[in-house]
Amino acid sequence: MAAIGIALWKYVMRYSPRQPGYFNRDRFVLSNGHTCLFQYTFLHLTGYKDMTLDQLKSYHSDRVDALCPGHPEIEHEGIEVTTGPLGQGVANAVGLAIATKNLQATYNKPNLDIVSNHTWCMIGDACLQEGVALEAISFAGHLKLNNLTIVYDNNQITCDGSVDLTNTEDVNAKMRACGWEVIDIEDGCFDIEGLVEALEKARKSSAKPTFINVRTVIGVGSAVAGNAVAHGAAFGAGDVANMKKMYGFNPEESFVISDKVREFFADIPIRGEQLVQTWEKQVQTYEEQYPELGVELRRRIEGRLPENWKDLIPTSFPDKPTATRASSGLVFNPVAAEVNNFMVGTADLSPSVNMIWKGKVDFQHPDLKTTCGINGNYGGRYLHYGVREHAMCAISNGLAAFAPNTFIPITSSFFMFYLYAAPAVRMGALQHLQVIHAATHDSIGMGEDGPTHQPIELANLYRAMPNLLYIRPGDSEETAGAWIAAIEAKKTPTIISTSRHALPQLKQTRRDGVAKGAYVLEEVEDADVTLIGVGAELSFALDVAKQLLESRNIKARVISMPCQRLFEAQALEYKRDVLRKHRIPSVVIEPYAPNGWERYAHAALCVKRFGHSLPGKAAYKYFGFEVGNMTTKVGDYLERVKDDAILRQEFVEL
Amino acid sequence: MAAIGIALWKYVMRYSPRQPGYFNRDRFVLSNGHTCLFQYTFLHLTGYKDMTLDQLKSYHSDRVDALCPGHPEIEHEGIEVTTGPLGQGVANAVGLAIATKNLQATYNKPNLDIVSNHTWCMIGDACLQEGVALEAISFAGHLKLNNLTIVYDNNQITCDGSVDLTNTEDVNAKMRACGWEVIDIEDGCFDIEGLVEALEKARKSSAKPTFINVRTVIGVGSAVAGNAVAHGAAFGAGDVANMKKMYGFNPEESFVISDKVREFFADIPIRGEQLVQTWEKQVQTYEEQYPELGVELRRRIEGRLPENWKDLIPTSFPDKPTATRASSGLVFNPVAAEVNNFMVGTADLSPSVNMIWKGKVDFQHPDLKTTCGINGNYGGRYLHYGVREHAMCAISNGLAAFAPNTFIPITSSFFMFYLYAAPAVRMGALQHLQVIHAATHDSIGMGEDGPTHQPIELANLYRAMPNLLYIRPGDSEETAGAWIAAIEAKKTPTIISTSRHALPQLKQTRRDGVAKGAYVLEEVEDADVTLIGVGAELSFALDVAKQLLESRNIKARVISMPCQRLFEAQALEYKRDVLRKHRIPSVVIEPYAPNGWERYAHAALCVKRFGHSLPGKAAYKYFGFEVGNMTTKVGDYLERVKDDAILRQEFVEL
Repeated sequence: MAAIGIALWKYVMRYSPRQPGYFNRDRFVLSNGHTCLFQYTFLHLTGYKDMTLDQLKSYHSDRVDALCPGHPEIEHEGIEVTTGPLGQGVANAVGLAIATKNLQATYNKPNLDIVSNHTWCMIGDACLQEGVALEAISFAGHLKLNNLTIVYDNNQITCDGSVDLTNTEDVNAKMRACGWEVIDIEDGCFDIEGLVEALEKARKSSAKPTFINVRTVIGVGSAVAGNAVAHGAAFGAGDVANMKKMYGFNPEESFVISDKVREFFADIPIRGEQLVQTWEKQVQTYEEQYPELGVELRRRIEGRLPENWKDLIPTSFPDKPTATRASSGLVFNPVAAEVNNFMVGTADLSPSVNMIWKGKVDFQHPDLKTTCGINGNYGGRYLHYGVREHAMCAISNGLAAFAPNTFIPITSSFFMFYLYAAPAVRMGALQHLQVIHAATHDSIGMGEDGPTHQPIELANLYRAMPNLLYIRPGDSEETAGAWIAAIEAKKTPTIISTSRHALPQLKQTRRDGVAKGAYVLEEVEDADVTLIGVGAELSFALDVAKQLLESRNIKARVISMPCQRLFEAQALEYKRDVLRKHRIPSVVIEPYAPNGWERYAHAALCVKRFGHSLPGKAAYKYFGFEVGNMTTKVGDYLERVKDDAILRQEFVEL
Repeated sequence: MAAIGIALWKYVMRYSPRQPGYFNRDRFVLSNGHTCLFQYTFLHLTGYKDMTLDQLKSYHSDRVDALCPGHPEIEHEGIEVTTGPLGQGVANAVGLAIATKNLQATYNKPNLDIVSNHTWCMIGDACLQEGVALEAISFAGHLKLNNLTIVYDNNQITCDGSVDLTNTEDVNAKMRACGWEVIDIEDGCFDIEGLVEALEKARKSSAKPTFINVRTVIGVGSAVAGNAVAHGAAFGAGDVANMKKMYGFNPEESFVISDKVREFFADIPIRGEQLVQTWEKQVQTYEEQYPELGVELRRRIEGRLPENWKDLIPTSFPDKPTATRASSGLVFNPVAAEVNNFMVGTADLSPSVNMIWKGKVDFQHPDLKTTCGINGNYGGRYLHYGVREHAMCAISNGLAAFAPNTFIPITSSFFMFYLYAAPAVRMGALQHLQVIHAATHDSIGMGEDGPTHQPIELANLYRAMPNLLYIRPGDSEETAGAWIAAIEAKKTPTIISTSRHALPQLKQTRRDGVAKGAYVLEEVEDADVTLIGVGAELSFALDVAKQLLESRNIKARVISMPCQRLFEAQALEYKRDVLRKHRIPSVVIEPYAPNGWERYAHAALCVKRFGHSLPGKAAYKYFGFEVGNMTTKVGDYLERVKDDAILRQEFVEL
């Protein structure tokens, strides 16, 4: 890939090594992240100051502060997104290209192209096999993102052997069918001129995204050139020495860069600084000529929201049963309408997820005329991702990675389908990207769609995932709390997990309680038990408490626990005050797999098998979530546990 | 889709409603599972005896034993696979078609086509957007599965509106590029003759899989025909009455089927029984002419393994440090070599997962000549799935669903990438399909590849997932136990989660201990603490126990807990005997998110943030998993907890 690198970093890409965060820089994504040495090397050669020759040696070393980890990481200068899991980078690049298009449509003015950058995405053979990339490719073609170029390192080798062991499709025809311009490069190992020409053409002249199919030879010049062995294994000292000799280097030396090479790249930092200076002047002019937009642009560049964003959220809600998926709309749509950091998307569930604000405009190519008559333009902020949950979340990571908080992407789908998207949700958490996932239909109460759609064990993944907030609000007020927590989490993605069905508005809920992860909903003196209520089933806890008192004179205090992770962040004293697990028995009510609730409860009304296709209420009944039954189970448990010292130490599924 | 249904069930498909399990039946997969009423109706009309008219009314009803759940479920006769999450069905169908090809190549003889069935897969617009389907389509084209036909209900409508909101690709060109034959049907609502002709052509004459692009109108005949409203909402009484009138029915009547319709379908059960009889005679002849193969065929049909399968597993292993991924090969490859129920696949990680047995033959089209020279035929049992983890697992579900245990598919990849495949793993668990997932590189000990490849929270998903065994063996002996448990779990998928790096062979491990999920590794009288060891870090527990005694005179007993779910299934007494959590403090050692361990332990040496790119040993050190440090932490914890009554009740992350 060396020739591709020279074409890109020396001749084509617009960037500034000394100002790696330059807003209008071209974005480069290495979707085949395992080839990261390629990128690290060019970062060094082009003058990224942290990437010293010494750092280049840190690859696969014991060095804890290495800038050359086994896959590129967003935390380091010159790296736009963390890659590694294949296919993700393609979708990230689509997100980056969407970001550019949206900013252009929103801010650019005649002779003031504040945003004009291009997105370049390197891929290998494997990225074209991964579903997430295929989804994103189809979507990018639909959107006609002509500011996006995929550079395909077509060496026809993966770990198992030649690619034709598993893939013999006509990739160019497939890309064309998906709405991409295709350019072939026959000698990708050496034809720098051809590469530069192709790349420049991709930037300038197409109405479509461009796919450059570059034939290369893996391990070119080595003894294992063109062989799968060159993919993962080291060449060995002898072979390396031979290659060095062949290319005119001293085989005795390592990590030596000649003056000639240094000179060849010497102009790049200077060129980059000029680019930045020119751009800064443009922005100045812009701010003078368009003062209002200029202020907004500056705010976006700096990743800030308007200061009043929280005031846009209703302070109260109609006192009528409301599905929390509808509450999400009540809470967030007024914010989405006013604050253009937010790009809202859905995996084909617009009618279900309620994320359409009044006056929303779709993000679409302006020339598109749809059959259903809903059109848009690149200034629109609502994305129809199609039934592509995985790409939706990976594209959103790209949007978020454009610049910190310039965009805050929202995704939406049924909670269960965030299992499809899980690898991308994880990559968002790993990269500290603020993406908010509006996940609806989050319990067996979603009903008739049955076990394929009813989440049982998915929350366990997200409650355990580092740097992710999984929040299940119990009514509209808690939904407000959930959105506020999500919007305030600048370096953390959030899943807001809501109900399909109507939930009562509870008098005791508090949005500032959600911020603490858990809080006391009903305190009782000399309580016999703590009931932990969560999300769609929060009201069950209150109902059971009432009936425990009435039918068995058992005093139950009730706490609401919408977010375990936010609760864990509280002071130990607060946690003990709320939980009181060391004082009295505690029972959680949640029709999910209970794994993890053992930390907070001694017993659980829970579900440990897959769901059942029944209307919501019937499904709750089928799994024992009727107030009478739950009351009996909790009451009986309290009797049993009284006389059983061992049982008190064990977690019991009721 | 009614016309398509008539073409399929009346004219084209070979099946027997009275013997729904007829081995050589055509398989029908409804990948757009939300249209299940379509399938239920034809099951009723064609004479599946459980699908009564009364049952047809059970759709979306409170009836707990309904045969018409909101999506098709494999448990019910006439349903080949459970569908619902879109795209899965396409991959399942590819698996079913592979099963047929493999059986044909293995058993069919001149004039004795014991297996000759075709697989039909209905899809909607959405299935063509999902990555898992796109992966499977590409793979099926590569394999030239000419016994597979996709019937595309092309109505250009999804929930959000017209498909051109999100997808404007040239689907026929895309399918052709992927190696599929394409047939167009213009009037899919009514042209039954054209449909029959296309379907018959698909069965007979192509060398490729066939894609029939059938233009239909959603809600045809209703007031909302061709509109997104027809997708999810009820038509309303008035519109239904109008449609009935238009089609010549009595609008006052519901659930009435005319004699004419009954007669139209009356021949189908008879035809089906004849098919079965002819086939049974063929099998008899086969058993006479090929007695040895005949016995094997019968065994496969009945889903049995050779009785000696367990004897093929080594009873002991070389006493040298071995990565459990290598142990997996030692344990299972001798079984795979002998027992042809097993179809082994990998998502392009052959060199890493060690699942190649001596003499393995690839499953490939016999005419394929690969560049790397590794060829195969349809009788081969090793599948190069490419970097398509999700499709690999969904295709494996299809293989397993062909007939109970006729095939036991093995998948393999890095454990982390089973997050890509998670929706398919879940569908396998939901459907009680025996699929074994050989997941390697399962800890931070996998090293340099870094946080994108190091699982932290993934085990939490799989430990909570119903009907799934997640097993982390600690050495070769435990790996034997893991494979035995997996092979014996006839209705449950298993993930065998193994290490990249070499682990010591422990004298105390026992394969029959793995079967119980947890067992005592080292017992000590008057123990002060129980240490729970798991998988790749099992030896750490033994090391810490030793050092606790030596350095602080603390007596630690050690238990191994490779599988929480198997342990949960044990008798209460056994569990208490092993755990003793009610008697003495218990500490688990596992560099994963600890959520769920609270049930078994009072404290954990665990990891709650993402990993770090470092060589394995350095990664362990970085996260505190050095024996000295762990010993100190456990020892200090035991001091603290002694004097702190509250702390004893809480879970502590050390």
